[in-house]
Amino acid sequence: MSASLDEDSYARAALTYLAEPGDTKLGALVRACGAATTLAAIKAGTLPEMSLSGAARAAGVRAMERWQVRLGEVPPADEVAGFYRAGIRLACPGDPEWPGQLADLGDAAPYALWLRGSADLRFSCLRSVAIVGSRAATAYGSYVASEFASSLAARGWAVISGGAYGVDAAAHRGALGADGVTVAVLACGVNVPYPVGHQNLLDAVAAQGVVVSEWPPGRNATRLRFLVRNRVIAALAPGTLVVEAGQRSGALNSARHARDLSRRLMAVPGPITSDLSAGCHHIIREWQGTLVTSAADVIECLSPVTAAPGQTPAAVLPRDELDPDTAAVLDALPSRGGMGTAQIGHRAGLEPATVMRCLGALAAGGFAERCAGGWRLRRT
Amino acid sequence: MSASLDEDSYARAALTYLAEPGDTKLGALVRACGAATTLAAIKAGTLPEMSLSGAARAAGVRAMERWQVRLGEVPPADEVAGFYRAGIRLACPGDPEWPGQLADLGDAAPYALWLRGSADLRFSCLRSVAIVGSRAATAYGSYVASEFASSLAARGWAVISGGAYGVDAAAHRGALGADGVTVAVLACGVNVPYPVGHQNLLDAVAAQGVVVSEWPPGRNATRLRFLVRNRVIAALAPGTLVVEAGQRSGALNSARHARDLSRRLMAVPGPITSDLSAGCHHIIREWQGTLVTSAADVIECLSPVTAAPGQTPAAVLPRDELDPDTAAVLDALPSRGGMGTAQIGHRAGLEPATVMRCLGALAAGGFAERCAGGWRLRRT
Repeated sequence: MSASLDEDSYARAALTYLAEPGDTKLGALVRACGAATTLAAIKAGTLPEMSLSGAARAAGVRAMERWQVRLGEVPPADEVAGFYRAGIRLACPGDPEWPGQLADLGDAAPYALWLRGSADLRFSCLRSVAIVGSRAATAYGSYVASEFASSLAARGWAVISGGAYGVDAAAHRGALGADGVTVAVLACGVNVPYPVGHQNLLDAVAAQGVVVSEWPPGRNATRLRFLVRNRVIAALAPGTLVVEAGQRSGALNSARHARDLSRRLMAVPGPITSDLSAGCHHIIREWQGTLVTSAADVIECLSPVTAAPGQTPAAVLPRDELDPDTAAVLDALPSRGGMGTAQIGHRAGLEPATVMRCLGALAAGGFAERCAGGWRLRRT
Repeated sequence: MSASLDEDSYARAALTYLAEPGDTKLGALVRACGAATTLAAIKAGTLPEMSLSGAARAAGVRAMERWQVRLGEVPPADEVAGFYRAGIRLACPGDPEWPGQLADLGDAAPYALWLRGSADLRFSCLRSVAIVGSRAATAYGSYVASEFASSLAARGWAVISGGAYGVDAAAHRGALGADGVTVAVLACGVNVPYPVGHQNLLDAVAAQGVVVSEWPPGRNATRLRFLVRNRVIAALAPGTLVVEAGQRSGALNSARHARDLSRRLMAVPGPITSDLSAGCHHIIREWQGTLVTSAADVIECLSPVTAAPGQTPAAVLPRDELDPDTAAVLDALPSRGGMGTAQIGHRAGLEPATVMRCLGALAAGGFAERCAGGWRLRRT
């Protein structure tokens, strides 16, 4: 992970400034001729020769003007390096931290993701559950979200949510309280405290997990952006759990994405007298979502789609697929007692920030665990 | 309907004294050689020649002693006539009021049913829902049971339940409050006030619906009898709705019978924090029960299996299939205004008790309705 982005990554960073995420015209263009060529074409105001044909080309020509409007907002490379110094990094397709399952979104896949936090996004998502629901959650919904998140985190599952009030916040807090990994996917820049009351919560997520956004640092959330963001939450996790949702809740939008992406869809039932359980009952009844009443139910529902059987977390990726830094940290870990990060870094020959990132990845992947003395190999 | 029972009916009445309901050995014997021959055989202490073969015969020989124990309890025919004078009647297979769907119980079908009340059992069950659940219902469960029963009754559906505290009582009361037909299937004699606190409720059910039992008048309920009784509740209704049930509730026993009998199985969800919703969630999750949140959901679930489409009750049986008395009462009914039972009886040439029974049947069947002036044809 370095502040000097290659040409493709810098172009992708620039594209997150130019176009709204989920713009399938831009996605198709990037797929056809690459991010760098696409950025150059937008700067030049002409579509690359042979890049698209027919209707897609005509649509691209029409969109060109829209993309060019924000050209002045794209930061130069040294400004992006400043983000890195502030703890914000970029993940692009092909990077070790890029979650490959986002390819399921096709031309609507993110151009890149901005990340802030200690956990490795790809590893975190391997064994994860998206927990979503109403911002105006009842005490019941908040309790259930927190309980599920806490139990799942304690069993080595990462909890993905949207950082909002209500169910989202309860889910993040439940995971944090169980010393688990949690991922907040925002509809604004990863350095924007939105909602304002969640500044501390988002900082806590970054410290123990990772804050994610398709929008560049500094961008504000809008109503539309929440809906666009929801597809990423649904795509990142093998399954989405709706805890409480009214019949027109945004959580149903996330649920629909999960269903359309062939992810597992689950819902928690509640009193039929509560409007906020109506969406959950709709999911179970009309969308064949699985009714779940415990974290164990969630794990059972997801076990066919994740590699690890049973409740004891085990490594979900073969060691061969670890990147070299992470493999080095894994080699450095003791099997008994515990070792501090400084000593691990000394053994592995890596700087502390890299050690922390790799340990987050190893923890999320089921290879390593925290203990009183620091870190050690997870017993299988 | 008369107090002078034919030989088969008297024999079946006697069998309800001799054997516990659901005794498949006795059921097989009755099926093989008829009720009268079976009763004579028990009195004689020998199985009829050629009635059964092999293992079934050996089992019958072993059971003979058990059946003979209670021979002294069988009342003579004039005592049965006394029951009729007290408003208690017997229904046997082949009688106009016998619900043919009980044949689905095979050798465990009731030998006969004792009835107390104004409604016709067969007609009542044609468009009916069994609503069952925990005796220790929460306020939520009682409210939901009452609301569903009331809405279903208002739309012309009869509500079948077990007369117990909790969900059962709320279901009966909901139907009664909506001037609907309700059926209480007891695990004791139809003249036994059990539970004692429900004497008034059971009398109200009899006045507006019908109280049913496989056990003869005077018999007390036992723990085992409740379980045996549950199969009849499940068999009578096209669908069973579980409102609240713990994981070991008797309501799950009813639900299992409904499932095994290929009846529609439905459950109301509730808070996952309530033990009394755990059984409902189990039904939805493990037994593919339909999650329902309203009476409309119940009707939608059942409409494929009942004859009448839509929400407006219409006749569920062709007029040709009405018994002669009921057809005569139907002919006597006015299409406008209303007519009292005395005048209907005069027109139809029938005594008041018969008129009341036929009107109950016609109301349950969707042919007739109560109005300010008495009774009239139901508008379609």
